Amino acid sequence: MSTPLTGDLSPEEFRAAAHAAVDWIADLLEHPERQHVRSRVAPGDIRAALPATPPIGGEPLAAMLRDVQDTLLPGITHWNHPGFFAYFANSAAYPGILGELLTAGLNANGMLWITSPTVVELEETTLDWLRQLMGLGAGWFGEITDTASVSTFYALAAARERAGLDIRAQGMAGRTDLPRLRVYCSEHAHSSIDKAVIALGLGHDNLVKIACDSQYRMRPDALAAAIDADVAAGYRPIAVVPCVGTTSVTSIDPVPAVVRIARAHDLWVHVDAAYAGPAAIVPELRYLMDGVDGADSLVVNPHKWLFTPMDCSVLYTKDPAALKQAFALLPEYLITATTQGAATNLMDYGLQLGRRFRALKLWMVLRAYGAEGLASRLRAHCELARDFAGMVHYEGGWELMAPVTLSLVCFRHAPPGLSEEQLAVHNAALLERVNANGRVYLSHTKIDGRYMLRLAIGNIRTDAHWVQLAWEELRVAAAGV
Amino acid sequence: MSTPLTGDLSPEEFRAAAHAAVDWIADLLEHPERQHVRSRVAPGDIRAALPATPPIGGEPLAAMLRDVQDTLLPGITHWNHPGFFAYFANSAAYPGILGELLTAGLNANGMLWITSPTVVELEETTLDWLRQLMGLGAGWFGEITDTASVSTFYALAAARERAGLDIRAQGMAGRTDLPRLRVYCSEHAHSSIDKAVIALGLGHDNLVKIACDSQYRMRPDALAAAIDADVAAGYRPIAVVPCVGTTSVTSIDPVPAVVRIARAHDLWVHVDAAYAGPAAIVPELRYLMDGVDGADSLVVNPHKWLFTPMDCSVLYTKDPAALKQAFALLPEYLITATTQGAATNLMDYGLQLGRRFRALKLWMVLRAYGAEGLASRLRAHCELARDFAGMVHYEGGWELMAPVTLSLVCFRHAPPGLSEEQLAVHNAALLERVNANGRVYLSHTKIDGRYMLRLAIGNIRTDAHWVQLAWEELRVAAAGV
Repeated sequence: MSTPLTGDLSPEEFRAAAHAAVDWIADLLEHPERQHVRSRVAPGDIRAALPATPPIGGEPLAAMLRDVQDTLLPGITHWNHPGFFAYFANSAAYPGILGELLTAGLNANGMLWITSPTVVELEETTLDWLRQLMGLGAGWFGEITDTASVSTFYALAAARERAGLDIRAQGMAGRTDLPRLRVYCSEHAHSSIDKAVIALGLGHDNLVKIACDSQYRMRPDALAAAIDADVAAGYRPIAVVPCVGTTSVTSIDPVPAVVRIARAHDLWVHVDAAYAGPAAIVPELRYLMDGVDGADSLVVNPHKWLFTPMDCSVLYTKDPAALKQAFALLPEYLITATTQGAATNLMDYGLQLGRRFRALKLWMVLRAYGAEGLASRLRAHCELARDFAGMVHYEGGWELMAPVTLSLVCFRHAPPGLSEEQLAVHNAALLERVNANGRVYLSHTKIDGRYMLRLAIGNIRTDAHWVQLAWEELRVAAAGV
Repeated sequence: MSTPLTGDLSPEEFRAAAHAAVDWIADLLEHPERQHVRSRVAPGDIRAALPATPPIGGEPLAAMLRDVQDTLLPGITHWNHPGFFAYFANSAAYPGILGELLTAGLNANGMLWITSPTVVELEETTLDWLRQLMGLGAGWFGEITDTASVSTFYALAAARERAGLDIRAQGMAGRTDLPRLRVYCSEHAHSSIDKAVIALGLGHDNLVKIACDSQYRMRPDALAAAIDADVAAGYRPIAVVPCVGTTSVTSIDPVPAVVRIARAHDLWVHVDAAYAGPAAIVPELRYLMDGVDGADSLVVNPHKWLFTPMDCSVLYTKDPAALKQAFALLPEYLITATTQGAATNLMDYGLQLGRRFRALKLWMVLRAYGAEGLASRLRAHCELARDFAGMVHYEGGWELMAPVTLSLVCFRHAPPGLSEEQLAVHNAALLERVNANGRVYLSHTKIDGRYMLRLAIGNIRTDAHWVQLAWEELRVAAAGV
């Protein structure tokens, strides 16, 4: 209707490039063996391969697709690769990729209900489905955030507000009427708890790390003692964060006991099940949610072990009023008929105003596999982990380092006569050799001074072949280190 | 290689569905006239149309695509529609949609450099391009976040840390050595500043709203006076947030004067240019960045007026060390050779650990249009706004309510003899009539008790035809209210 502007882009060019991109992605996913899992570039290589200044005129989409293949792909570490066993898996199932494509095409922003009712109501519906799948009771309010770090930050912000100290209005600095506020978690809790406590201005020193038992689980007696000592010292305990599936070893804190102790002291209980939560979809693993219905909030990450593309974390809470009290604000330019009625406006439950349509990809993953399909995949990952643990245990010279509770195996090569320090150096070298080969990718951790390798299974494309391959790579590397 | 699991999904099914989705999106974008801009559903309609329980078995992708069309689309408010003039535009250009598709297919997580070097280095390169395009000097560190709310929250977290009060370790509650900490912004600043101050535990009461002049710009004399009064009262000023393009009326605070005052009191200056920042790509609008090189941080949202799909906000800072001091933590399971060397690990500069490959879509938008193509589009939007303002001014019975600085026009229908209260009711009814028609979608604001309509131009697909249509819809509605 008006004159084309400089660098205009025809619908036909978009169609052609997007169809080509679909086939490129499909080819990539069908042929993981063509890629090194961990990128082999050195720091600065990718930057050096890109122009230092932006283009003046427009460039065709086809040229960019070529650059993605030639220039960018070598610097990609392939989280979608079935040989990815590092950290915890983030993998994107086909329906999730399809969901992301549609989300970008619609580009809906669900900041208010009216700015896209579907964004809000599909999020409500999908998160209620996920709640049911995990066997949780009714009464949970859910919202999607980008990462577990933000979900946990929101939960602790609500806890801080529910303490009734008017921190929202008055803040904490320069007041003489406030005690030190304390938060508790296990010594093996994730660093996101530390970051949340720091960001909220509670102070890292006020995050109390509770000692664990020999299986790396928070000790309820130690928690109770720490709370009692803090109260006696004039501190005010406000929250505790038990973890269902710790990062280092996937140990599971005793949530029912933690909830009982917390209730006696009016603490907010936030359960960190970012990795392990989806496993509760498997009927025989439903015990993972024991006691969680008595908690105040829960974080579960579908972008980890539920095959949904990055990013998609879910925060559930039984006390959305506290979350709203911590965050809601309504400036004039956002007032509509539905900001004052029955509709949910998700901007009231967190920092962010803009809200991407993230529920679509999760909804498509849940529908494409269904309860049984998801359970069969999660169960298969746990079986693969047990099989791998069996191989490690059977083979001489290797040792398991922690109980295999779900789909993570912690282990190491332990030739006789090496000190702890030598074992760490030896296994680090072994790990680097395996990872440099590029066929599989593992990571490590260290607990109580003991270095261990981590084989974390959770990619939707990982099957027995790839676990077997990892074991072969490890054995060959161990022989050669 | 192993037995297919329940609900397995073939690569061919993905290819077919993704190709169909590409064409569906292209059709949707080529025929905006087929959609109502603002959804017409009532609260609960979409939820009621969806099953209350998750499926047991898997479902085909084709069935989901049909449901997207039949069930979900009616509840979408179309931010990608050229008739979308509400709030500030979020629009997804074709190259941005293509970028999102590739991002989902790769599903790379750039939490550490080694976990996908390309994610980190393309982010560095792309943000340096954007810096150059906006005419900023060297020395800015950039990172992508999801929203301006989070960018601003990070900036103020860094400001809080740089105040040297050891808030990271000790927190703020229960200390007798801390003064009240104060943050300043204009009375027309965005609610994200309020939310950041609340979340950081500084207290909403300690966000001081500075009076504006008759053009809605922060008054430097009032800022200086407020700081002096606070210092005299024993408070500690830590930051000021001038806005380049306020939400209600796109007024522009005098950044050079604010920077001068801030320097004298050692305040962190965070510039909120979430909406207007990209306009500095237009050579004759480069003055928008006057003084910004003297600030400590800046937020610009490519997902607003730079045609990049949700979500993509950019935080720039001259003091990344302060940001790192506020957030960095390195647990054992994240230690690698490159967490201690020269490579950038973006997890150190914010709350989030997981990092989506958001730079790709922005890089593709910048390349597809180039500096000239982007400038021509941004310039055209400003011209359309001036043309619309001219029509409003020329027509009897309407009035402009604020200077048209960029691409937003604030105006109202003002039949003679109506009180302020009657004008508000009249214009709200007029707005609802226009929005209910569904051909265009506008929003409103209220300043100093005066209700006004907002026509915000910024969608990549908006041209003169759609602005003319908005004007016709408004005039017809005004005649009929």
